[in-house]
Amino acid sequence: MSLLADITTPTSFDLGPARALSCRECGHQIPLAAEFACPQCFGPLEIAYEFGDVTRASIEAGPRSIWRYRGLLPVPSAVQEHPNTEPGLTRLIKADRLGAALGIRNLWVKDDTGNPTHSFKDRVVAVALAAARELGFTVLCCPSTGNLANAVAAAAARAGWDSVVLIPKSLEQAKVLTTAVYDGTLLAVDGNYDDVNRLATELAAEHEDWAFVNVNVRPYYAEGSKTLGYEVAEQLGWRLPEQIVIPVASGSQLTKVDKGFQEFGTLGLVEPTPYTVFGAQATGCSPVAKAFADGNDWIQPVRPDTIARSLAIGNPADGPYVLDTVRRTGGAVGHVSDEEVVEGIRLLARTEGVFAETAGGVTVATTRKLLAEGKLDPDAETVLLITGDGLKTLDAVAGQIGPTATVPATSAAVREALAGR
Amino acid sequence: MSLLADITTPTSFDLGPARALSCRECGHQIPLAAEFACPQCFGPLEIAYEFGDVTRASIEAGPRSIWRYRGLLPVPSAVQEHPNTEPGLTRLIKADRLGAALGIRNLWVKDDTGNPTHSFKDRVVAVALAAARELGFTVLCCPSTGNLANAVAAAAARAGWDSVVLIPKSLEQAKVLTTAVYDGTLLAVDGNYDDVNRLATELAAEHEDWAFVNVNVRPYYAEGSKTLGYEVAEQLGWRLPEQIVIPVASGSQLTKVDKGFQEFGTLGLVEPTPYTVFGAQATGCSPVAKAFADGNDWIQPVRPDTIARSLAIGNPADGPYVLDTVRRTGGAVGHVSDEEVVEGIRLLARTEGVFAETAGGVTVATTRKLLAEGKLDPDAETVLLITGDGLKTLDAVAGQIGPTATVPATSAAVREALAGR
Repeated sequence: MSLLADITTPTSFDLGPARALSCRECGHQIPLAAEFACPQCFGPLEIAYEFGDVTRASIEAGPRSIWRYRGLLPVPSAVQEHPNTEPGLTRLIKADRLGAALGIRNLWVKDDTGNPTHSFKDRVVAVALAAARELGFTVLCCPSTGNLANAVAAAAARAGWDSVVLIPKSLEQAKVLTTAVYDGTLLAVDGNYDDVNRLATELAAEHEDWAFVNVNVRPYYAEGSKTLGYEVAEQLGWRLPEQIVIPVASGSQLTKVDKGFQEFGTLGLVEPTPYTVFGAQATGCSPVAKAFADGNDWIQPVRPDTIARSLAIGNPADGPYVLDTVRRTGGAVGHVSDEEVVEGIRLLARTEGVFAETAGGVTVATTRKLLAEGKLDPDAETVLLITGDGLKTLDAVAGQIGPTATVPATSAAVREALAGR
Repeated sequence: MSLLADITTPTSFDLGPARALSCRECGHQIPLAAEFACPQCFGPLEIAYEFGDVTRASIEAGPRSIWRYRGLLPVPSAVQEHPNTEPGLTRLIKADRLGAALGIRNLWVKDDTGNPTHSFKDRVVAVALAAARELGFTVLCCPSTGNLANAVAAAAARAGWDSVVLIPKSLEQAKVLTTAVYDGTLLAVDGNYDDVNRLATELAAEHEDWAFVNVNVRPYYAEGSKTLGYEVAEQLGWRLPEQIVIPVASGSQLTKVDKGFQEFGTLGLVEPTPYTVFGAQATGCSPVAKAFADGNDWIQPVRPDTIARSLAIGNPADGPYVLDTVRRTGGAVGHVSDEEVVEGIRLLARTEGVFAETAGGVTVATTRKLLAEGKLDPDAETVLLITGDGLKTLDAVAGQIGPTATVPATSAAVREALAGR
């Protein structure tokens, strides 16, 4: 079946069901290539597909990774034949204790910390690498301050590719180590993240064999987030949830989860039941939440100031599309303070045993806030996306938690210490 | 089919196929209970089973976690009905690049960092919790210096149980945080790990509702490691590897992986093809490797001094059984220096994109050494068990790795920095 009205341009690449790049703004189509901006209007390009016969059975018979959905992704059909990190198919757990704490009757947590480098970035990077190989690139690159750097360096190592990862030189040592260990090229740049980003765009233009996952192969990369939506639907038993809460950085992930849900409905893999999408931001970087609250369809950039660094994108490229999705489905975009972020991390950990990074705290705390505001329905089945790992943002909880007590090594001392509890 | 010759004692607990506790030394059997030492000879007790009809199809139709093997574990058949961390079914990746670096033709890496708290301890703790619930306990406990503390605190949180985790008060802050975040009772004990262990045994005797996973419910807990063997066999396409290399702390894991392989063969789930088991230790805590080299069948305890802290058990309870297994299968136990451990971590990361904790470095480096010594066959299909995550032992690589270069934010500076490479 075809979701694509008319494809006017042929392609010589094997990128599975991908047929063209299509402008999200003006609909202009160009052949599959390493392009990210429309040559006519400079709007963002995304993948246009012609899907073949994809069934529940064909997916279930596939590998235990995102490649079970390869028939719906812009990757070669033989994608599994090349070494890759095999991300995805992470846990979807029923979260009754968190649900009880929040007052949500039927709650699930999608725990993407189980990915190879413990964030959802492994998904998008795996798709980017597979497409980049087919497009002729030989070096995998990114600007990043954390999760993406880990994912790119690890994926390149596993594939036997060179990598070039650009980081601000002020980055914390732990994040430097968790990237450097994969032994690619890691460049500490004298500047802030904006400088690093500009440098990446410049380098992408100069090096024809360098694939910057989130720059020149961004349309492919972004599609990797659809797999979060696919997995939630499959793991719920081939149906869509009624509500889903998603953290918003660039906004790409939220729009792609929505796209995944829609594709599953259109392809007949699930009943196309209605669902509502909610966005979550930290107050210190909440341009999309502000635009939502103000009724705008454009984003006023901000200078980020929040502990939720993996969401700290002050000028989110997909912000307007987040607003579209959230409004179309009857949702909302909320925001929470850094104190609430830490409370969210701790609440999730103590109720479900899931230790999330700050972005996860944003999602949990925003869910609580949207409930209190009456925007989120406590009786509707709800999924929270936890996209990164608390081990990478220990600073957020340091100083706030610690041992219950320090005791001498005797059972009497333990009894005494616990007597008051 | 029954693997158990004669079971003389009835049981009132639903622990699935488990029928009794059987002494590993004298064979004496007692009913299922929270016991770990034989009342006749003080030998270690292990689970005796009467397995029902378990087939490849019944396993494949099960959940994507260790519970797909619940028919082979000492847990209630309805184990999935209670909230648990749902560990297991982690990646088994073909490791051609590491294989090329080591000189092994056909190499696989079992990456257990994908578990909920990123180590294999989630497996054993999940089994311990399920059994402990059935045995009437209400509090989950352990002495630990790291991975086990994380796993127990997280599993208890998810189950809604109280937990009591005992740690030496000198433990690094990161390990304190990654346990404290789950909000159980965390007691910093004024003493070393031996003191903490003794205290745990004392407390287990005094509190009838406290299940110390590695003390009074140890026979159940230990069985969780069988799932590593089961998964390797299933993920290889229902067959056994020819060689497997396993890190040795208490030695329990190695013996249980062997048990899992044997059970799969006996049950007809795989061809019972021959395999060789190798053990890996850090030189600074290598009592089993020394006993192997000396031809002893007993272990001389040592005082650990190694960066591989998760393996630093100076008096390993299952050491003699490790020697049995390794000798029976024609393997060996090797050991490597801390420098080699770090090289092992870095080699695995740069070839396969897997960042292991120090125990993983021990496994990789020992594999290299056993190859060089001619003990490991480079032409035999080999699996390495990577049981924990590098994010938890960053100190091991700190100071040894870092950015390739620090550059101004210009493409010319990047070109210059990379010119020599």
